[in-house]
Amino acid sequence: MCTSITLYTKDHYFGRNLDLDVTYGESVTITPRNFLFKFQKVPDIQNHYSLIGMAIVVDNYPLYFDATNEKGLSMAGLNFPENACFFLEKADKDNVSPYEFIPWILSQCKSVKEAKGLLAKINLVNINFSDELPLSPLHWMISDQLQSIVVESTKNGLNVYDNPAGVLANNPAFDFQMFNLNNYRRLSPKVSENTFSKSLDLNVYSRGMGGIGLPGDLSSTSRFVKAAFTRLNSVSGTSEPESVGQFFHILKSVEQQKGLCEAENGEYEYTIYSSCCNMDKGIYYYTTYENSQITAVDMHKEDLDGTVLTAYPLVNEQQIRFMN
Amino acid sequence: MCTSITLYTKDHYFGRNLDLDVTYGESVTITPRNFLFKFQKVPDIQNHYSLIGMAIVVDNYPLYFDATNEKGLSMAGLNFPENACFFLEKADKDNVSPYEFIPWILSQCKSVKEAKGLLAKINLVNINFSDELPLSPLHWMISDQLQSIVVESTKNGLNVYDNPAGVLANNPAFDFQMFNLNNYRRLSPKVSENTFSKSLDLNVYSRGMGGIGLPGDLSSTSRFVKAAFTRLNSVSGTSEPESVGQFFHILKSVEQQKGLCEAENGEYEYTIYSSCCNMDKGIYYYTTYENSQITAVDMHKEDLDGTVLTAYPLVNEQQIRFMN
Amino acid sequence: MCTSITLYTKDHYFGRNLDLDVTYGESVTITPRNFLFKFQKVPDIQNHYSLIGMAIVVDNYPLYFDATNEKGLSMAGLNFPENACFFLEKADKDNVSPYEFIPWILSQCKSVKEAKGLLAKINLVNINFSDELPLSPLHWMISDQLQSIVVESTKNGLNVYDNPAGVLANNPAFDFQMFNLNNYRRLSPKVSENTFSKSLDLNVYSRGMGGIGLPGDLSSTSRFVKAAFTRLNSVSGTSEPESVGQFFHILKSVEQQKGLCEAENGEYEYTIYSSCCNMDKGIYYYTTYENSQITAVDMHKEDLDGTVLTAYPLVNEQQIRFMN
Amino acid sequence: MCTSITLYTKDHYFGRNLDLDVTYGESVTITPRNFLFKFQKVPDIQNHYSLIGMAIVVDNYPLYFDATNEKGLSMAGLNFPENACFFLEKADKDNVSPYEFIPWILSQCKSVKEAKGLLAKINLVNINFSDELPLSPLHWMISDQLQSIVVESTKNGLNVYDNPAGVLANNPAFDFQMFNLNNYRRLSPKVSENTFSKSLDLNVYSRGMGGIGLPGDLSSTSRFVKAAFTRLNSVSGTSEPESVGQFFHILKSVEQQKGLCEAENGEYEYTIYSSCCNMDKGIYYYTTYENSQITAVDMHKEDLDGTVLTAYPLVNEQQIRFMN
Repeated sequence: MCTSITLYTKDHYFGRNLDLDVTYGESVTITPRNFLFKFQKVPDIQNHYSLIGMAIVVDNYPLYFDATNEKGLSMAGLNFPENACFFLEKADKDNVSPYEFIPWILSQCKSVKEAKGLLAKINLVNINFSDELPLSPLHWMISDQLQSIVVESTKNGLNVYDNPAGVLANNPAFDFQMFNLNNYRRLSPKVSENTFSKSLDLNVYSRGMGGIGLPGDLSSTSRFVKAAFTRLNSVSGTSEPESVGQFFHILKSVEQQKGLCEAENGEYEYTIYSSCCNMDKGIYYYTTYENSQITAVDMHKEDLDGTVLTAYPLVNEQQIRFMN
Repeated sequence: MCTSITLYTKDHYFGRNLDLDVTYGESVTITPRNFLFKFQKVPDIQNHYSLIGMAIVVDNYPLYFDATNEKGLSMAGLNFPENACFFLEKADKDNVSPYEFIPWILSQCKSVKEAKGLLAKINLVNINFSDELPLSPLHWMISDQLQSIVVESTKNGLNVYDNPAGVLANNPAFDFQMFNLNNYRRLSPKVSENTFSKSLDLNVYSRGMGGIGLPGDLSSTSRFVKAAFTRLNSVSGTSEPESVGQFFHILKSVEQQKGLCEAENGEYEYTIYSSCCNMDKGIYYYTTYENSQITAVDMHKEDLDGTVLTAYPLVNEQQIRFMN
Repeated sequence: MCTSITLYTKDHYFGRNLDLDVTYGESVTITPRNFLFKFQKVPDIQNHYSLIGMAIVVDNYPLYFDATNEKGLSMAGLNFPENACFFLEKADKDNVSPYEFIPWILSQCKSVKEAKGLLAKINLVNINFSDELPLSPLHWMISDQLQSIVVESTKNGLNVYDNPAGVLANNPAFDFQMFNLNNYRRLSPKVSENTFSKSLDLNVYSRGMGGIGLPGDLSSTSRFVKAAFTRLNSVSGTSEPESVGQFFHILKSVEQQKGLCEAENGEYEYTIYSSCCNMDKGIYYYTTYENSQITAVDMHKEDLDGTVLTAYPLVNEQQIRFMN
Repeated sequence: MCTSITLYTKDHYFGRNLDLDVTYGESVTITPRNFLFKFQKVPDIQNHYSLIGMAIVVDNYPLYFDATNEKGLSMAGLNFPENACFFLEKADKDNVSPYEFIPWILSQCKSVKEAKGLLAKINLVNINFSDELPLSPLHWMISDQLQSIVVESTKNGLNVYDNPAGVLANNPAFDFQMFNLNNYRRLSPKVSENTFSKSLDLNVYSRGMGGIGLPGDLSSTSRFVKAAFTRLNSVSGTSEPESVGQFFHILKSVEQQKGLCEAENGEYEYTIYSSCCNMDKGIYYYTTYENSQITAVDMHKEDLDGTVLTAYPLVNEQQIRFMN
C-alpha cells in the first residue's frame, strides 16, 4: 500500500512510497499561483499558493497523490480501504471532495495550524471526479516544518490526529497504529544489557540485536512500526545530498519488492515511486522502482505566476553510469 | 554486518551489501590474467582467470571483499566474528591465508564444482597480510550459475555447506541459519486463509499480511531470514535493467540505515556499498550509501591479458538528475 | 492483570483468573433470592435471582469479582486502568455505580439479551462504595449459555460489544483486542505446509509449529491472543470433570507465575485464583495459586430463598494426596 | 513433546511434563537397592542406589521416563526425533542401550560429577528392549543439587553439555536451543524504559510488557525459551508446599492443552502428567491432565533394601473437594 514520512535536518523534507500493482501515468506536476482550481461545492480559487507534487492530470485537473506548496505545507493521500467513509453534502460545512482535498488545503494554507482551521469546517463529501474515476478510500498526512497531523474520515466522522511519529501507512486507523507502538518500546538501535537472566551468559553475536522484534513484513501495521523506528532513530548529516539520501534510505526500509506482496488479482503490489520534497526549497526528488537514480524538479525554476500546469513525466528507465 | 545473495533470471547475478562503520577506500578492481598472484605458503600463480570485484589494493595486492572471475565463479567474504578460526600450517594441505582465499579460488576454478575440489585440500592458515592488516574473521559464499556453497573455518575445522537459500549473512554458523528458516515456513507473499478459528471472522485489512512474522531488525539472523524470503519470492523480468534493478531491491530489503545499528564504539554501522555482478557478462554494478545511482564497470572493456591491476575509485557523490 | 473465558461443552462454563499482587480475603459467596440489594441511586431490590461467585463482603455487601446467577447469566469485572471512565449522575439514566453493576444485572436478568435491555438505560456513575474503597477501573464480560458481550465505560461513553472470542483480558479497549487477532489469522494447532519457498526443504522438527508467532508473555494483549487461540481450538470431552478440567487448562495457559510480572511497587502480580462456574448447575469451582486441587461450592445445596449471604473462605493450602 | 526443569529453593526439585498423544499405563515406581538390574552388554548390577520415578514396567523391568535416586541424582528422557542416533556395539566402551541408560546412571552415581565419569565410557547402543518395544529417539537431562547436564547421542557421537538454563525440551539440539536464548536477552519481568524513541510518549498500558516477544506456542524451541524465562525469573518461598507449588506453575507455563497441538495422525498431543521430585527427600509429586490435585509417593516409606519393584498406578480422576 503506501508509507509517508517527514525528516527534519537543516531543511525539512516530506515524501512517500506509492505502493500499487498498477501505474497511472503520474508525473511531477507544478500548479502555478494563477491556475484556476475548480471545486464542485465550494467556491473556485483563482489566486493561491503554487504547488509541486506527483499527480495524474485528467481534463487539465491535477489529481495529486502528494504535494508541497511554496510555503512548505505538504500533504499525501494514502490508501485506507474499508475505513475511509465520505458523506453526503452538509449545509453548514465546506463540502470538499477527497480528490479536491489536497488542492483545497495546499492552495490556501501555509502551515498545519492554518490547515487545522480549514479542517474544522470541512465535510469530505462523497462526490466522484467522474464516473470513470471513482473516489479512492484515502486518509491523509499533512506536514509543515514544525509538525504533522493525520486526517481520517470514517463512519464516526472526521478525525484529526497529531502525529508525533511523523509517519503514516494504511489500515488500521491512526490511533490504533500509534497505540501499537507501545508494544515496541523496548526496541533500540543499541544492544541493551541482558535482562533475561543474570545466571546465563547471553552473547551479543551480532550488532543490531537491540532491534530484535521489529517487524519486517509488508503489512501496513508492520510498515508503520518499521518506518517509525527507522525515522525516529535515523542519523544523518544536514547537507542537501545527505538529507535527501537519508530520506530515501528511510523510505526504502519499507519498500515493497516485486513478488513479495501479492494482491487479490494475483498481481504484485510494489513501490512504484518514492518521493522526497524539500519543503523549504520546493525541490521534488523521486526514484522509481525501475530507476534508482534520483531525479529532481525545482518548482522555483518554473514561472510560478502562470496559469497552466507543468508536468514532467517520470524518468522510468534505469540510468546506469558506466565507468568504462 | 553484511549480506550476500545471488539472483538467476536469464543471466546470473552475484553481489552483497558491505555493512561497516568505516570505509577503507575500496575500488572496483580488475585483475587481468597475467597479474602475478603471490601466495605465502602455496606456489604463486602467473597465468589465471581474470577477476573483477571490490577491493582495497595494498602494496599492489588486491584484497577483494567480493569478486567474480571471467567464468562467472563468484565469491564474497562476510564477517563471522568469534566463530571464524584459522589454523597453523599443516604439512599435507594447501595452506592458504584468508586474505589469499578469493584469489586462490577464483584464479583457478571456473565453477563451484571445481572450487570444491580445491577446498578439499585447503587449510585456512592463520597468517596476516601484514602487521598493520590482521586477518578479519570471515566466512565465504561461493556461487556460480548453478549453485552456491558456504565455507566456514571454525574450531571444528573447515565446513563446506550447500546453500539452497542463495543467501549469506553473518553469525551464527550457516547450519543454524538454515535450521532457523524452519520457524518461518508458514510465511508467504500471499495472504492465507484464517486458520486461527473458524468461529471468528478475521479480516484481511492489508495486503502483505501473509508475511507477518518476518523479522525487520538488522541483526544477522533477521537479515538472513528476510533476505532469503525476499530473494526466494522475488519476481522480475529477465532483461538486464530489470534483473539488476530487482537484485538491488532485494539487497536493500536488508540495508542498514545510518543510526539504526549502533556499534560498540558509538558509531553506526551502515551499508557502505551494495554490489551486483553479472556473472555471465563480467559487469560489476554498485551503489553506495551516498549515491543511489547505479555505477558500472565492465571487465571486458579492459585488457584482460595484461599484468597490472585496474582500479576505479567509487563514485560516492549523489548523482541527481535535474529536469529543469 | 486478569483473564476471563467461557467454555461450552454439554454444559456451559464461565470463569476467570484474578491476577493481582495482593489478596483481599475473598470468599465464594452465595446471595439468596431475598437478600436486600441496596443501591445508591436506583431502587433497592428485595426479590431477585440468587447469585454465586467470588466476593469480598464488606458491611454485609457482596462486592463480587465475578458471579453467576441461578439462570446461568455470568459476569466478571476485569481491570481496565486509564481507560475506564465513570460519570456524574444523569437524570434520564439508571445511575448504577460500578461496584453495584454485577448485582444490578445478575439480580434482574436471565440472559445477555435481557442484560442488553438494562444496559441501554445505564449510566455507570462515579460513586465510591466508601472512602476506604474507591472504585476500581473495570470493564466487564457478561455471558450466558449462548453468547458473550463486553461492557466498557470510557470517556466516549458506554460501549457494549459482542464478543465472539469468548475471552476478555485488560487494556487496551475491546475493539483493539479483537482487531489485533487479525494479525494471528495464520496460526493453527496443525502444522501447515511450507509456503516460505518451494525451493527449500523446510523441516517440521516439532509438533506445534503451526502456532509459532503466538505470544507467551503476560501483557494483556498477549494474554488475550493466547487465551482466544487456546479457547477456540480447545478439544474436550463433555462430562463434568473433562469440561471443568479443560476449562482450567485454558485459563492456566495465561496464568501469571510469581516472579514473572513485576508491579510498579516491586511486588509480583500472580494468579491469585482461577474460577470456573457451571452456568447450568450453579456449581462454582476454583483453584488458588497455592492449592491446585479444585474446590467446589454448589449454590443449590444452600437455601436460595433465604435473606443472608453465605460465604465459604478459600481453601488456600496445597492439598497433597500421599499414596504411602 | 516434553519439557523438564529443575528448581532449587531450600530443597532441590526435578521434574518434567510428559507430552504425548497416547498413554502407556505408567506408574510411580520404586526400585529398591537389591533389585537385580539386568543389562544386555554390560554387567548386571545387584546392589545399587534405590530409585523413584515414573515408569512402565514390562517383564519386571522398570522403563523409566524420569527418575531420581536416593542421593538426589535425577534423570529424564525427552523426545529427540530425527536427531537421536544410537550406534553399533563398540569394543572399548560401556555399551548401554537407551532403555538401560537411566538405570545404569542412577544405580551407580550420586552426582552429576560421577555421572560424567560414566558418560566418558558410554556408547549408547542400538539395541531394542524387545521387538514390540523399539527404542525411542531420546536425549536426557541429568541433574543433581548443584547442576544439570544434557546428553545427546547424534550422528556426531555422544555430546555432553552443561545446562545452566536448567531446562530441556526437544528438537533441535541443545547447543542450538541455548544459542537461541541470545535472541531474547532483552526480555524481563520488569517493564523497561522506552528506548524506541525519546520523542514519543509510549505508554505502559499493562504490567508484564517487559516480556513482550516471549513465544507462547507449543513448538519445542518456544517451550524451551518460555520455560527458561519462567524458571530463571521465578520467585517462590522455600517451604515444601511453596516450592512444589511453584515448580508445577513453571511446568504449566509450557503445558500442552488438548486441541492445541495436532499430531500427524490427527490426534492431539497433551501433557499427560507433570512431575516434581524432591531430590533431597525422595518424594515424587505429580499431577495428570485429568487430575490437578497433587499426588505424592515417598520412597522412604518403602523398604528400600528389598528386591522387588513397587508401583503406584496414577490417580487419574479429578479429585474435587466439595465444600457443601
